[in-house]
Amino acid sequence: MDLYVGIDLGGTNIKTGLLSADWKILEQDSCRTEVEGGFQHVIEQMADSVRALCKRRKVSLKHVCGVGIGTPGPVDVARGLIVVAPNFPGWRDIPIRDALRLALGGIPVVVENDANVAAYAEYCLGAGRGLKSLVLLTLGTGIGSGIVLNGEMYRGATDTAGELGHVIVQVDGRPCGCGRRGCLETYCSATGTVKRFREALAEGNTSMLLEAGMKKEDITARDIFEAAAKGDALAWQVVDQTARYLAVGCDIAVNIVDPDIIVFTGGMIAAGDLLLKPLEKYARELFFPRPKEHTRLAFTQLGGDAGILGAALCGRNS
Amino acid sequence: MDLYVGIDLGGTNIKTGLLSADWKILEQDSCRTEVEGGFQHVIEQMADSVRALCKRRKVSLKHVCGVGIGTPGPVDVARGLIVVAPNFPGWRDIPIRDALRLALGGIPVVVENDANVAAYAEYCLGAGRGLKSLVLLTLGTGIGSGIVLNGEMYRGATDTAGELGHVIVQVDGRPCGCGRRGCLETYCSATGTVKRFREALAEGNTSMLLEAGMKKEDITARDIFEAAAKGDALAWQVVDQTARYLAVGCDIAVNIVDPDIIVFTGGMIAAGDLLLKPLEKYARELFFPRPKEHTRLAFTQLGGDAGILGAALCGRNS
Repeated sequence: MDLYVGIDLGGTNIKTGLLSADWKILEQDSCRTEVEGGFQHVIEQMADSVRALCKRRKVSLKHVCGVGIGTPGPVDVARGLIVVAPNFPGWRDIPIRDALRLALGGIPVVVENDANVAAYAEYCLGAGRGLKSLVLLTLGTGIGSGIVLNGEMYRGATDTAGELGHVIVQVDGRPCGCGRRGCLETYCSATGTVKRFREALAEGNTSMLLEAGMKKEDITARDIFEAAAKGDALAWQVVDQTARYLAVGCDIAVNIVDPDIIVFTGGMIAAGDLLLKPLEKYARELFFPRPKEHTRLAFTQLGGDAGILGAALCGRNS
Repeated sequence: MDLYVGIDLGGTNIKTGLLSADWKILEQDSCRTEVEGGFQHVIEQMADSVRALCKRRKVSLKHVCGVGIGTPGPVDVARGLIVVAPNFPGWRDIPIRDALRLALGGIPVVVENDANVAAYAEYCLGAGRGLKSLVLLTLGTGIGSGIVLNGEMYRGATDTAGELGHVIVQVDGRPCGCGRRGCLETYCSATGTVKRFREALAEGNTSMLLEAGMKKEDITARDIFEAAAKGDALAWQVVDQTARYLAVGCDIAVNIVDPDIIVFTGGMIAAGDLLLKPLEKYARELFFPRPKEHTRLAFTQLGGDAGILGAALCGRNS
């Protein structure tokens, strides 16, 4: 019996899945990351979670052939390091692969960027099945991305490939969390969308959200999408601009990578057609003739499971 | 004796080379394209040139194992078509591969985008030898680009990959020849550089070029680079901005493709260090930590021969 484990290591939660060799999720677990406990504590949290899954399934840890970890930010895959992690303050060149392997008694472990892992999952098991190439965008507080080419996760020379959230779409534009200016994610991530909405309010525009008594600083991207769906003019405009910037991001991906499909995932896709329809429209307007006909834009088929599925798939290759 | 032919098909000239199996250029030829004569005439020009090379070398056409054509604009490699050609007005879905094969009595022919071909040449024989991945930028009236990954030319799903000149770096920015706005090449191609210089003059700035009696409309990119080298403040600023936009282009390439090296070719590299030095500086400022250390920026090692060399290399795979 060959089993695999996929771990989706986030700043707040660790999601863990035990998978069969045909990629059925047999057991799932979720626990707090508790970053404040330090690196070794996070390793123990992951190891405990893996052991708990096995116990619940009544299988020995020996049946686990490989463990994959998907984690945000840059990763050194060959050396098994988290290079820097936006959600783990102070972590630098952390040997997470070897530490978890040790904690699990020697099971092979691999560590990958979380967006790469999700892209690989969609390619193998989701929206990209049967195609040759895929770009995935995770639309959340930031924008992550992953690329799969000819059936393989594409990492680039320094594992930095597929950082589409930090492609500059406005030279000298808005300041980005990365310290530079004009990155795609400052305009159309959930955070970027909220910022543009608040700015529009500060400029004197009004919205049903204010009229309903919400405080400006409490408004979330979800509120804005909901207001847009209800016909709020300002929210609608802001969502439309988000879609327009995302279309520019897709166009850049197409002009460089030219994939068969661009898949969207992350919290923002809860907006559904409200986001996808204008995004499709703007993207088709921008695309050159051949991709205009060919390139598909689609939402994830795996949803929140892509992280553990993709990590487990990588664990197979560990 | 296995020989190959590489053809660099431009809007003005056709450059042709006869190559040995170890990629020595044995003979070279150049003739006018004479586009005005129509498609079949251009085919005859190419075929005549190939026959002339063989005659000069005193070899039979039968020794030519493959012919590659590099041509600007989008190409349908599988079907051997020029999809649209910026330099050949009215050409659409032109079956150039089969027409030339017919004209040459059945020799295998392959048609590729000219920037892809140059990228492949630099990878196999030039600045990218021994590396795994390369992005090439041709800096001329426009900006072309080609990508080589793991030893293979990367074309994408619709042969549209590597159109870095048309990556949008300024949403709602300058109008581009492609009909869209804000594309990289509108800012930092030779044409873009001249435009920005003329605009700066129109805003009342002065330059030694005007003082030397040049007319605004006669100023070329070469004039601007020369004036910058002589210390002309305005020309220097404009060149500096060109380098800055090119650095953004490199950063986008790095954030998506993450290659080992970015190679520059085309007319503008005549500017030498005047362009490369600030470009290096701005690019290193933008790059994320790992590519900042790793990614090399370099000028072509093959210069004007990259076109026929790369086309011939493709001819080998025909």
